[in-house]
Amino acid sequence: MPKAVIYRQYGVPAETVEVEEIAPAKPGLGEVRVNRILAPINPADLNTIEGKYPARYPLPATPGIEGVGTIAELGEGVTSTDLKVGSAVLLPAGLGSWREEVIAKASDLFPVPEGVPYQEAAMIRVNPATAWRMLHDFVAPQPGGWVIQNGGNSGVGRSVIAIAQKIGLKTVSLVRRPELIDELKALGADVVLLDDETAKDKIKESTGGAKILLGLNSVGGESAIRVAGALANGGKVVTFGAMSRQPMKIPTGFLIFKDIQFVGYWMTRWYKNTTVDQHRALFAQLLELAKAGTFQTPVEKIYPVSEVREAITRALQGSRGGKILLGQA
Amino acid sequence: MPKAVIYRQYGVPAETVEVEEIAPAKPGLGEVRVNRILAPINPADLNTIEGKYPARYPLPATPGIEGVGTIAELGEGVTSTDLKVGSAVLLPAGLGSWREEVIAKASDLFPVPEGVPYQEAAMIRVNPATAWRMLHDFVAPQPGGWVIQNGGNSGVGRSVIAIAQKIGLKTVSLVRRPELIDELKALGADVVLLDDETAKDKIKESTGGAKILLGLNSVGGESAIRVAGALANGGKVVTFGAMSRQPMKIPTGFLIFKDIQFVGYWMTRWYKNTTVDQHRALFAQLLELAKAGTFQTPVEKIYPVSEVREAITRALQGSRGGKILLGQA
Repeated sequence: MPKAVIYRQYGVPAETVEVEEIAPAKPGLGEVRVNRILAPINPADLNTIEGKYPARYPLPATPGIEGVGTIAELGEGVTSTDLKVGSAVLLPAGLGSWREEVIAKASDLFPVPEGVPYQEAAMIRVNPATAWRMLHDFVAPQPGGWVIQNGGNSGVGRSVIAIAQKIGLKTVSLVRRPELIDELKALGADVVLLDDETAKDKIKESTGGAKILLGLNSVGGESAIRVAGALANGGKVVTFGAMSRQPMKIPTGFLIFKDIQFVGYWMTRWYKNTTVDQHRALFAQLLELAKAGTFQTPVEKIYPVSEVREAITRALQGSRGGKILLGQA
Repeated sequence: MPKAVIYRQYGVPAETVEVEEIAPAKPGLGEVRVNRILAPINPADLNTIEGKYPARYPLPATPGIEGVGTIAELGEGVTSTDLKVGSAVLLPAGLGSWREEVIAKASDLFPVPEGVPYQEAAMIRVNPATAWRMLHDFVAPQPGGWVIQNGGNSGVGRSVIAIAQKIGLKTVSLVRRPELIDELKALGADVVLLDDETAKDKIKESTGGAKILLGLNSVGGESAIRVAGALANGGKVVTFGAMSRQPMKIPTGFLIFKDIQFVGYWMTRWYKNTTVDQHRALFAQLLELAKAGTFQTPVEKIYPVSEVREAITRALQGSRGGKILLGQA
């Protein structure tokens, strides 16, 4: 019998989650039964289980905001030619992707074009989507323009590098470990610098003093101020994470005299405030890029659902070689 | 002979400024000679003399970004019916209003309608202008809508209270001293609260949990976060000063999950990025309000130009009863 991860109350993720068997079910009218192939463990999933994430679901719930599967069985009335038994689909958010099987509304599934690696499809809805939107929604991208980001090695950071290259933007990426410099350059990063007090002068030098108007911040603390300080007057710092867990101490002069704007981005809000057609347009663009090999997301290990506690434990450790996923190990 | 304040280098204001006599001059073609009546000492003036203000003038220079005068003599070719000998005008920025007489281009002068108190006209270009723009340019003002500000007793703070009332906005003003509560309420402030940790609950209570989308911050530090925390999702904190000299420690969740935007406002930038017609439209609106008695700017003392050092010294002291101006004492 297929299995699903569930949690009945909020708590320490590796201790709180349980594995249950899914009772056999037939897809109803307009529904589809999907074999889940792969689903990542995202930080937001763990925060949700802890009860610390602003987006909550009625308990008991199954975690997992994204994943990919293949269609196992079509219910009555499912006539879309894109949905056939065996074809790959993106799982909808909200049902929980940390399960081996799911019954979903056919209209909530997005078909994955042939040739897209399952691994990238399983992780398209969060990191590449965040990177794409942040590169487009705050400062209109100009070919040859520059963007600066900290946390260059994160999932979003790598997606930013990949997407920026495709749309003609140049990137400055700040990273915490020297060995990441060559690694990110190999991915197509233009400038990669250590995220320390030497960065300021090096940014100027390596960009030829380019006017940078967009800064992406997922670190906070001093690093966020470094990103802000690299921007030209009128630039925007978009914050979407706080890996350092340090608050941002914003110098007032940045706001008043340099007209730097500090705003936030939350992918969940975008999905909530936009239409299904907009979601589909975004997925189509991102999966096209994935098919072209744009994203090369490193994966450390794929765990079966039955080993979800081990998977969570590993996902919470630093210095991993890549993402942790649930799937057929 | 009329006198002017000048500074030849940047330095401690009261020690750096000197008083000189102005050589007699006739207004040329299209020019006007103006008897300066009143000019305030603004913090930005003092920062400019210190060399710490981002807007600089070639040295030697005369300080003073605003003031009012009356026309003493018209040069040739000045045909505007608004400009007659004896009629009041706003002085242009950039020539320095800390002088008893000035030759100005007629086209740079804005006529002050009869019935506007000179004192309010002299101070219209900075504080009321800042308040007006901040109440209009960031969140479209909705009748019955709310705005929250700290530093409610500042020049801009009082202008915010006065203008908000005229345009149908309600105000929450945070202040540092209890005796200011009744004083600001007498001016028409809706809610006035002490700027401390008790404010949060009291704001909710006294506004009936109103959705506040605009926060004005001239204090920084904890107070800025208090203003941000009072905003509904999607609200904006507009920073235009930092009286506490404490940086703003922005909690990341405000940016990401509450979509609070932190932006800055600098009146000088607005004047620079807009047309003379836009400036004139703003002055016309503000002087109309001044004529109606909207602004009641408290003045502590008017010093003659010859006593500018005493005037500066007093302007730099706390617990004044009002603004310090230069003029006919």
